[in-house]
Amino acid sequence: MSPRTVFEHELKELKDNVTTMGLRVEETYAELFLALECRNEEEIYRILKSDRVVNEMERNIESRCLSLIAKQQPVARDLRTITASLKVVTDIERVGDHVSDIAELLIRLNMNPLSSYSGHLEPMVKAAKEMIRAAIEAFVSRNEEAAKDVIESDDIVDDLFNKVKQDLIEYLKKETKNADECIDVLMIAKYLEKIGDHAVNIAEWELFQETGEIGDTRLL
Amino acid sequence: MSPRTVFEHELKELKDNVTTMGLRVEETYAELFLALECRNEEEIYRILKSDRVVNEMERNIESRCLSLIAKQQPVARDLRTITASLKVVTDIERVGDHVSDIAELLIRLNMNPLSSYSGHLEPMVKAAKEMIRAAIEAFVSRNEEAAKDVIESDDIVDDLFNKVKQDLIEYLKKETKNADECIDVLMIAKYLEKIGDHAVNIAEWELFQETGEIGDTRLL
Repeated sequence: MSPRTVFEHELKELKDNVTTMGLRVEETYAELFLALECRNEEEIYRILKSDRVVNEMERNIESRCLSLIAKQQPVARDLRTITASLKVVTDIERVGDHVSDIAELLIRLNMNPLSSYSGHLEPMVKAAKEMIRAAIEAFVSRNEEAAKDVIESDDIVDDLFNKVKQDLIEYLKKETKNADECIDVLMIAKYLEKIGDHAVNIAEWELFQETGEIGDTRLL
Repeated sequence: MSPRTVFEHELKELKDNVTTMGLRVEETYAELFLALECRNEEEIYRILKSDRVVNEMERNIESRCLSLIAKQQPVARDLRTITASLKVVTDIERVGDHVSDIAELLIRLNMNPLSSYSGHLEPMVKAAKEMIRAAIEAFVSRNEEAAKDVIESDDIVDDLFNKVKQDLIEYLKKETKNADECIDVLMIAKYLEKIGDHAVNIAEWELFQETGEIGDTRLL
């Protein structure tokens, strides 16, 4: 194989690894809320234990990116692809962390359905899930338009967070004996909002892949 | 100048940039809580506006790191130094973000002293501040022992977070009319805890600089 063919093969492998890591986090997110629906606490403990795998995937991809940059001295589009992968895994891994954070809180809440605290939580779970799915899809398929859509959709999750917060404040004012539960639920909403923020970052790394720019700043 | 001398000069500049960015975030943190003490709302608005500067510093350092890796093909210790800088700026920038998040909440709380909500908040502000200072110092001066101390000290901030949370729950149970304030204060405590987490990451990047390992994983 020519050096260029070897390099292209390595780039393809890198892309496959990022895809696998992204899908893995998406799946864990879906499994978590499915486990909540079925009140399957055992499954939630399994999800908590599996977070380590995603961290290992991140390290593995970072290591590949660095060795590709050092050995192949890529330029232009190739360098942007590798750099974007090196950065995007941080955001994907943080989503995984927040899924674990939520899992811990769901156990503490005795697997109570989220809808019992605020009618805006289930729409928020759905909206954040869709943002993550769309962001990873946009990154992997290098779809600029789809990435821009994700960035625009961030307001939906932010608005829902404020609505959940308002509901919890009203709930607290009426009934204080469940104050600690309310605070845990608020934290869940905060983690969902953060997941939306990371989806926006992932979409921004897709735009960077194409243009070398992040927001208004030229990086490469 | 020989190519090696040029490269060493560039590495020195990179290190200076990371130091400047770290000090800048440390300073902003200190200024924020000083402004709260003096109830100087104008100063807090100034701090909010200045967050952009730190983001630009991050992009600038990332851009330098990538161009150094691509042009100089560094190996071993040099590659670890550059990679660590590329990753550590993400954590420093997030600390800056959380300082801004806290600034917004302090304005919403009408600059009320944090001690009026929980006696554990001021110790938490001090502990997180010390963690960030020590972590940046350990990274910049390449001090492995100091980095390990930072990693061990994370429990202090985590414990204080739980105490603040407990205080707020008690407060809420007695008096619900300030529920929205309580929730804002809880968020401030959460951001302080997150700042402690980023200090731990910064300390881990120092260890990586020396060893090429992050936790139990060999990265380079």
